Amino acid sequence: MCGGGVAARLVTVTEQKPLIDRHPLPSGIPERLRTQLGFLVEVDQLKTVLRASPLAAADRRENDAEHSWHLALMVPLLAEYSDEPIDVGHTMQLVVVHDLIEIYAGDTPIYDTTAVVGQAERERAAADRLFPLLPEDQARRFRALWDEFERRETPEARFAKAMDRLQPLLLNWMARGGTWTFARANAEEVRQRQAVVEDAADTLGEVVETLVEASVREGFLDPAPPASVES
Amino acid sequence: MCGGGVAARLVTVTEQKPLIDRHPLPSGIPERLRTQLGFLVEVDQLKTVLRASPLAAADRRENDAEHSWHLALMVPLLAEYSDEPIDVGHTMQLVVVHDLIEIYAGDTPIYDTTAVVGQAERERAAADRLFPLLPEDQARRFRALWDEFERRETPEARFAKAMDRLQPLLLNWMARGGTWTFARANAEEVRQRQAVVEDAADTLGEVVETLVEASVREGFLDPAPPASVES
Repeated sequence: MCGGGVAARLVTVTEQKPLIDRHPLPSGIPERLRTQLGFLVEVDQLKTVLRASPLAAADRRENDAEHSWHLALMVPLLAEYSDEPIDVGHTMQLVVVHDLIEIYAGDTPIYDTTAVVGQAERERAAADRLFPLLPEDQARRFRALWDEFERRETPEARFAKAMDRLQPLLLNWMARGGTWTFARANAEEVRQRQAVVEDAADTLGEVVETLVEASVREGFLDPAPPASVES
Repeated sequence: MCGGGVAARLVTVTEQKPLIDRHPLPSGIPERLRTQLGFLVEVDQLKTVLRASPLAAADRRENDAEHSWHLALMVPLLAEYSDEPIDVGHTMQLVVVHDLIEIYAGDTPIYDTTAVVGQAERERAAADRLFPLLPEDQARRFRALWDEFERRETPEARFAKAMDRLQPLLLNWMARGGTWTFARANAEEVRQRQAVVEDAADTLGEVVETLVEASVREGFLDPAPPASVES
């Protein structure tokens, strides 16, 4: 179902005109700035891309803009746990940009094995369409931020990715299951997806393990392999 | 009505226990980190604080978390227009923190003359309650970010505030009125509230004036003073 939703979104949205065409900016604004403001209007759509994660503060799902803000706050708050020194400002840029392509590609829940098929191609196509809406130098710079996040080859990208995983883990803890229940994920699958946290920050990796174990103990996350339950 | 809503929110929320008490973190997490994660859960409430501004991408009002993300993206995108050199990363920290106190104090629409009464006291009380939820050193550091934003005495704070005003102006443009229509604001009142944009960035100040004039011309913003319409 989720896979179909993502595909439907891609088809629908790529046929749409830029949002700014609904009310073009008046003349008299310099071309470069007009392009930048048009981009800022276009990415307003990030607020409409729903994730699987439930909020802790309300009975509804989170959207990508809310999620991106939460990560941006986590970076300066938890940077002290990074195993390598990081540039906090650069890491914040990575997280506010990392989900932009989902405006066209949709959110792909990480435990949805159907939806993840073709995800990389879908997201690359979205990036190829989105970033060129910026002035050329900024198109290159913001595309480079997205590429850096995806590749996880810099300390900043590793830490940004860790925040991207740790945040929904916290929300699932608060919901006593959340996306784990919805996707019938087990502890082993959660550990696999959360391995990127330990890659960036040992202490935060330990928190992941503590939360996974407590979730199994409290009965809202299945242990794995399932055989161990029956033995 | 808005004023009453804000007051009601303050009374209700200040009596609530921290959100993390609904599902306390398991033992085995170091005290400092436990405090930080509890804070990150508490501020999930920013996603439930509604602003007056309408989204460009959907037919609903924006919330504070979405707004804060949008500003965080605007900072690296528009920093080149700042009249003074700014530290982009620091400015991003200012914008992701600037609305946190509204979790307890509620959003105060700037054209709502009833709601703005007591706003400063309400927000200071909220800050006094919120930031001490962090470890002491971070409580001081994040409170200092909020104070810096409010005082507008640094180039970074001036630019952050300019983004905070320019973003809803763009949304009002896309909505052909938005909060201006709702609050029956006129062009002169908009110019007053938007003066902080020119304080930080002359070029962006000119964009404000261009958008205000075009909005009057297109008939969805009343010119001011009203007498000039009748003459």
